[in-house]
Amino acid sequence: MNGADSLIRTLIAGGVDICFTNPGTSEMHFVAALDRQPGLRSILTLFEGVASGAADGYGRMAGKPAATLLHTGPGLANALANFHNARKARTPIVNIVGDHATSHQRYDAPLSSDVAGFAAPVSGWVRSSVDANAVAGDAVAALAAAAQPPGQVATLILPADCAWNETAGTATPPPPPPPRRAQPKPNVIAEVARALRTGESAVIFLSGQALLEHELALAGRVAAATGARLLCQTFNPRHQRGAGRIAVEPLPYFAESAIANLAGTRHLILAGAQPPVSFFAYPDTPSWLTPDGCAIHTLAAPEDDAQAALTALVDELGAGSVPMDVQPALAPELPTGALTPEAVHRSIAAQMPEHAIVSDEAITGGFGMLHHTRGAPPHDWLQLTGGSIGQGLPLATGAATACPDRKVICLEGDGSAMYTIQSLWTQAREGMDVTNIVFANRRYAILEVELARVGAQPGPQAQRNYSIGDPDLDFVALARGLGVPAARVTTADEFNARFAAAMTEPGPSLIEVPF
Amino acid sequence: MNGADSLIRTLIAGGVDICFTNPGTSEMHFVAALDRQPGLRSILTLFEGVASGAADGYGRMAGKPAATLLHTGPGLANALANFHNARKARTPIVNIVGDHATSHQRYDAPLSSDVAGFAAPVSGWVRSSVDANAVAGDAVAALAAAAQPPGQVATLILPADCAWNETAGTATPPPPPPPRRAQPKPNVIAEVARALRTGESAVIFLSGQALLEHELALAGRVAAATGARLLCQTFNPRHQRGAGRIAVEPLPYFAESAIANLAGTRHLILAGAQPPVSFFAYPDTPSWLTPDGCAIHTLAAPEDDAQAALTALVDELGAGSVPMDVQPALAPELPTGALTPEAVHRSIAAQMPEHAIVSDEAITGGFGMLHHTRGAPPHDWLQLTGGSIGQGLPLATGAATACPDRKVICLEGDGSAMYTIQSLWTQAREGMDVTNIVFANRRYAILEVELARVGAQPGPQAQRNYSIGDPDLDFVALARGLGVPAARVTTADEFNARFAAAMTEPGPSLIEVPF
Repeated sequence: MNGADSLIRTLIAGGVDICFTNPGTSEMHFVAALDRQPGLRSILTLFEGVASGAADGYGRMAGKPAATLLHTGPGLANALANFHNARKARTPIVNIVGDHATSHQRYDAPLSSDVAGFAAPVSGWVRSSVDANAVAGDAVAALAAAAQPPGQVATLILPADCAWNETAGTATPPPPPPPRRAQPKPNVIAEVARALRTGESAVIFLSGQALLEHELALAGRVAAATGARLLCQTFNPRHQRGAGRIAVEPLPYFAESAIANLAGTRHLILAGAQPPVSFFAYPDTPSWLTPDGCAIHTLAAPEDDAQAALTALVDELGAGSVPMDVQPALAPELPTGALTPEAVHRSIAAQMPEHAIVSDEAITGGFGMLHHTRGAPPHDWLQLTGGSIGQGLPLATGAATACPDRKVICLEGDGSAMYTIQSLWTQAREGMDVTNIVFANRRYAILEVELARVGAQPGPQAQRNYSIGDPDLDFVALARGLGVPAARVTTADEFNARFAAAMTEPGPSLIEVPF
Repeated sequence: MNGADSLIRTLIAGGVDICFTNPGTSEMHFVAALDRQPGLRSILTLFEGVASGAADGYGRMAGKPAATLLHTGPGLANALANFHNARKARTPIVNIVGDHATSHQRYDAPLSSDVAGFAAPVSGWVRSSVDANAVAGDAVAALAAAAQPPGQVATLILPADCAWNETAGTATPPPPPPPRRAQPKPNVIAEVARALRTGESAVIFLSGQALLEHELALAGRVAAATGARLLCQTFNPRHQRGAGRIAVEPLPYFAESAIANLAGTRHLILAGAQPPVSFFAYPDTPSWLTPDGCAIHTLAAPEDDAQAALTALVDELGAGSVPMDVQPALAPELPTGALTPEAVHRSIAAQMPEHAIVSDEAITGGFGMLHHTRGAPPHDWLQLTGGSIGQGLPLATGAATACPDRKVICLEGDGSAMYTIQSLWTQAREGMDVTNIVFANRRYAILEVELARVGAQPGPQAQRNYSIGDPDLDFVALARGLGVPAARVTTADEFNARFAAAMTEPGPSLIEVPF
């Protein structure tokens, strides 16, 4: 058994059964070992940003880490943008990066690079194995680090000789103990209950674990018992929403709207969320969004057990049997006539099946989408947590891997799609059940909006940086080039029909929505 | 004048007139300033790896830096793989990365990241501006750092407020003084001449500046006068070759072939090159490729003035009028019949025009290509310097920007093409004269070769990691989706005709060569 065998056995013993790959020569012993150590399914990607984004989507839905297998520093570099999003989503990932053999690292060969340096900005844990015998223990440590609440990217660098050399023993270390999130402190629960009982304007600000169905029901009882308002982060890793669940509005994206939304709030209670700050800074607009005099209470930090904290709060408030306001089912009428973003939103809301998973990177094309789908059948909504566009298609790919029996709907902007369009090929190869909808407005519209907000008029060069027409991208051709059937629609009725077909037929598809 | 105006004026004063961009909100003041400060042409890319690779291609051909404009840490992250190649090519690049406003950086907003940390592994110089008044001076320092011989990536991080705030003055600092490469030391010249006069087996090992036409002619005189053998690195930033120039063979790629090539060498004389080491390490094969007892003489390190060193050596040897062996013109007959890689190589060699620029990332599809083109009309050959695949298409894009009057031929593997396929869109938008030839063997063939070399048989999972068929990529559809006319050929005659047409018609095109 060599180091690569030992690594794969340890990953499998630790519960990892999926590895998103883009290997090179330094990883060939790992790849060869996959066939000797059954239990780790490898899924090839054509670009590393697909692998990291897919591992994020998998981790968000499976609640356990996938592995990634990347080729030295530059292969890791291509994965970093989506690892950044995964870091902000606090997704557990075991990231394996091959490197030159330890004996080769002192030479400045072409692929020599500072692999650990590349890994540092996105990883909660980084280690490079020193020899084949160390690999199994390093893998156990990586598993434990990835699972450290609330979850993080753990990068294990595997020099080629640590993979190819024989190991002394064949014992697989036991998997790490399951992690335990920090439990609520009674004095914190009492403080939050006191604040809520004042009757002063209060917001319970939710994200992370607190946006899962069971935790939301607890938050709903607190809101019903106290009159506190439920609000969630603008961008969340995973939000379970739809008919029969507790509805939560997101904090608006633009700073001035968020400030208006929070005006008058005297108590902001964090449940799995961070304090609200603006996405970007602007001249003459504060970054910190809560009003002066608003007390911030941390009921549960992202790494804490939000379920236990909310349960304790419900008990403290005696709210266990308070009737809750759940979201009623709402089925919009199917749109007809002109193809507008709103028509697409309504059509999706009317036709999406129960337990759909939505990967949302539609940016401006999706403005209003959350509103239209609020009463759709229960579903999971996955968002762009780190602002690094190019997440949507890979995230959908990973979610489909984790949940092969559920429909995955990817809402994608045309600009955003082009960072990781290679995802479609992996969806095609694996027969993943993903319906990709590309909102093709031929521009980086969010940038035009932002420029207008600061009062600037774009000149010809600026316009050319914000338009992605000339030439127009043809997503039907791109999808076909990558093996995914695709169509462009021109009316709401055509969209209705294409989307309905996608919801009944398995496998990947793409619908281009020009407007 | 704000900080962004000040930055752009300083870049222009420093001779920078091209900026490859993929901006976001934090760069909008820079983008808006482009129209107020004429002289910096921005070229939009749909993915940052295209921008960094294009800046590399531009710098290699123009001999001066292009700028890049990237969006915070994740935007930079997407550019890192091709910056790695640029670092190994020692290409001057001024890399501008927007970041959150300084006041916003203490909040953990979604896009907050360690921008300097991302930059460090690929940059020779990194600085973050502290206020708008500092920007011009920082830009001067970045220009000087990028031009530091032999050239490097200089990363200037521009917080949004440093771009949007007004600056105190409007003076543009003078551009930095032109860099001067280190001049040869007489004792080194004497030592090298002495080694060459021994008559012992000697190799002059060339790369960098020493592979330009004039320097090659000097090396050719040394070889003719002393019997030394000329050899170049396997991968070089820019190699001027073809009929009428001094022919130089590259060191073979595989370690055992390289060791055999260098067997018996007593003196290895470095001219712009690093000592030869194997690309990867292998069990039981040394990384260091020169034989025991071979003396290594550094005539010119990569940062030294190789032209001056070779001139001094020619003088020392009295070789100024020695007749040289120049490469005779060789025009292969046009191939006919079956479409094989060799047929493609011969067709290109027979039809490529004078002063063509070849961006070579064909990997296994290009084995033998250098041999067939050795007597083609004079041309520049640009190679994968850092081993990070996904360089070919962007590099061609940048070379075409630097040399709009020359034909650019991009030789691309199908696997490699998929990392930065977005390059085609920029070629189409800018009407760049690039002929892209994709060798489509439907596999990562180099990895299959490497696996076979270590004696491993790929099992089903390994095969699935090395095949990129199922589904087959359709490069004609992909190119059309990105606005580039394309065709798939099935015979050598069809390839001849398509390539001939591409050599006479301006603008981008793609030819898919399945085999």
